[in-house]
Amino acid sequence: MKLKRGKPKEKFSYDPQKVLKKLEDLAYKILEEVKAGKNPYFDVPTRGLSNVYFDEEARLIKLGDKLSRRYFLNVAHARKFMQTLILMAYVKRLVSEGKHASLREAYYANKHTIPGTHENTFEDQSESDPIIEDLERMLGVLREEMHITADRRGYVYGDIVIKDGEDEFNASKLGMGGWAVPGTVEHIQFPEINVDYVLVVETAAMADRLIEEKYPKRERALIIATQGQASRGVRRLIHRLHYEEGLPIIVFTDGDPYGWYIYSTIKQGSINLAYLSEKLATPDAKFVGMTMDDIKEYGLEHVTEKLKGIPPDKKGGPTGDYKRLIEELNYPWFQNKEWQRQLKLALKWGVRIEQQALANKSLEFVAKEYLPEKIREGKLLP
Amino acid sequence: MKLKRGKPKEKFSYDPQKVLKKLEDLAYKILEEVKAGKNPYFDVPTRGLSNVYFDEEARLIKLGDKLSRRYFLNVAHARKFMQTLILMAYVKRLVSEGKHASLREAYYANKHTIPGTHENTFEDQSESDPIIEDLERMLGVLREEMHITADRRGYVYGDIVIKDGEDEFNASKLGMGGWAVPGTVEHIQFPEINVDYVLVVETAAMADRLIEEKYPKRERALIIATQGQASRGVRRLIHRLHYEEGLPIIVFTDGDPYGWYIYSTIKQGSINLAYLSEKLATPDAKFVGMTMDDIKEYGLEHVTEKLKGIPPDKKGGPTGDYKRLIEELNYPWFQNKEWQRQLKLALKWGVRIEQQALANKSLEFVAKEYLPEKIREGKLLP
Repeated sequence: MKLKRGKPKEKFSYDPQKVLKKLEDLAYKILEEVKAGKNPYFDVPTRGLSNVYFDEEARLIKLGDKLSRRYFLNVAHARKFMQTLILMAYVKRLVSEGKHASLREAYYANKHTIPGTHENTFEDQSESDPIIEDLERMLGVLREEMHITADRRGYVYGDIVIKDGEDEFNASKLGMGGWAVPGTVEHIQFPEINVDYVLVVETAAMADRLIEEKYPKRERALIIATQGQASRGVRRLIHRLHYEEGLPIIVFTDGDPYGWYIYSTIKQGSINLAYLSEKLATPDAKFVGMTMDDIKEYGLEHVTEKLKGIPPDKKGGPTGDYKRLIEELNYPWFQNKEWQRQLKLALKWGVRIEQQALANKSLEFVAKEYLPEKIREGKLLP
Repeated sequence: MKLKRGKPKEKFSYDPQKVLKKLEDLAYKILEEVKAGKNPYFDVPTRGLSNVYFDEEARLIKLGDKLSRRYFLNVAHARKFMQTLILMAYVKRLVSEGKHASLREAYYANKHTIPGTHENTFEDQSESDPIIEDLERMLGVLREEMHITADRRGYVYGDIVIKDGEDEFNASKLGMGGWAVPGTVEHIQFPEINVDYVLVVETAAMADRLIEEKYPKRERALIIATQGQASRGVRRLIHRLHYEEGLPIIVFTDGDPYGWYIYSTIKQGSINLAYLSEKLATPDAKFVGMTMDDIKEYGLEHVTEKLKGIPPDKKGGPTGDYKRLIEELNYPWFQNKEWQRQLKLALKWGVRIEQQALANKSLEFVAKEYLPEKIREGKLLP
């Protein structure tokens, strides 16, 4: 199997004017209602599991079409109504001025006492975060498009040219460090791409191993280190590199329920962020390892570790790794024989295998044999 | 107070040959003892609090001169003796070949069953990590100099040219992302420095704020984001920028016991790593904020948060933030009126103040007023 860049399916879509237009349209609607003496309201797509489903065709976790109507003249709704308008005004200012704020800054910036009362606009960040999520759902835009940045984590190494504002640089010419992925990647462009695919790697130590072994150059791969669960910025970057630049996505994590969960989130999206799956998830992603079959295949029995938690057939179980494993066995997107086999083997053996355990063969092994062989022979999980 | 680059006090010192020489000298000593029919041994500086002290003059946490002798022909020592030799051989190979390994890889790579026995060389990483620390102490080198890399975290933004192997780039031309600090910075060089000082920032969100506000350019500052507790790589980078490049170091954290602990570790080193203070710590570092006095000075009373845990005068206390606060009150390096005042105010008021709370004034406030004013007026804590 030779990995090659394919045709793009999406276009660069960052457009602050579009976001401003949506905000203004919504605000004008409210204004008209006020002028007409009506009770103004927002229609907010309902959150929670009851309004989430797995779209088999698109292979994405998606948001349903249930709406909750939030009125101004309703004692139960008025506070949230006010908070929504405050944050809409704030986002408009951010986007107009080309500035970004973190969720925490957005909270602090908008916390004040309402004149003539002892009431605060927001008591806690747990009040402002959900309103920003509501705005994402109502407007159908990512909070990054509203210039509210997410936590940043993860870095990139490989032969592509990244353009961020006026700066342009090659992400394989930054020494061993690599480029730190910012909280928002909406505006990033890729004027030059000299790689055939993206290898997403769970741990920094493994990404560094591959960089040191010159894997990116030899295999024409772009390495993205997630450093644990992939941040929103990294997930959006993966999505864009696949859909806008046509790069195949291969994911490489530890062989354990947490690693597989990281893969699942990159591929299918998460239930919490179901309304964002179409922009954050990459259902075409494939999984190279680690798998339970790798343990036998590569003779790694003596460097496995025990799963944490209580197995389902023991008192108090399942907990820990076992609990997550059982959940994964039931994921709609893991209902195929390859994944069922790996998950059931993990349950049966009660072990996990780390990426770095491959160092037991030799430091080079992962870069010169394990990955190239598995990818060449197409030994990838769906 | 105008911050300016001063004279270097240390030189670029990375020299793999020096490390190899030390390893070989030690190995030859053992070999000679074996040849002479003697019982071979290592002298290992004793770990633990009993062998750690605060050097008032150097203002550093340092390791004392107590030694433990580890014999081969001693049932209680033989296993560790073997492990030490295994890891010495491994480090020699790494350094000779110019390769790096993580602590975890070093463990996996050296775990095997001793032929003819059921005994493993290492059962767990908790056996190999302390041996690597022993080697650091015995040889007086950082584990990074032995090519064992630490966890990587943190990024850098500002007008300096970084040279890593054949790559050279300006850390202010990488868009908003910045340069991801690698696990090992020993070999990094700085051919060009166009900044007057280093501003070390605890949170990524605040570092990103300052970058967006063009603080690095306007104030000729290099931003280093630690993203929580500073990684070893970041601490070594700060040390080198100060001692080899003469840059003043200013630290900016949340105004809470954890933020002050981050500062303390950058400045004085930590008890666990006392033997490394001379290479990792930077006693000349100064602290700009957040302080308890900032709360009144800038009218931030309504955006403080309560300290976590139980106060010392309540049943079960002190725990959480309060416990750390009490410890900090007793640190030798916080025995000055400025720090005692801040720590006691925190204890009295029971509150903390975050960096991002400054967004309550305006997004620009921190970059255009708070930091420039405090630094210009020299309102820095020792």
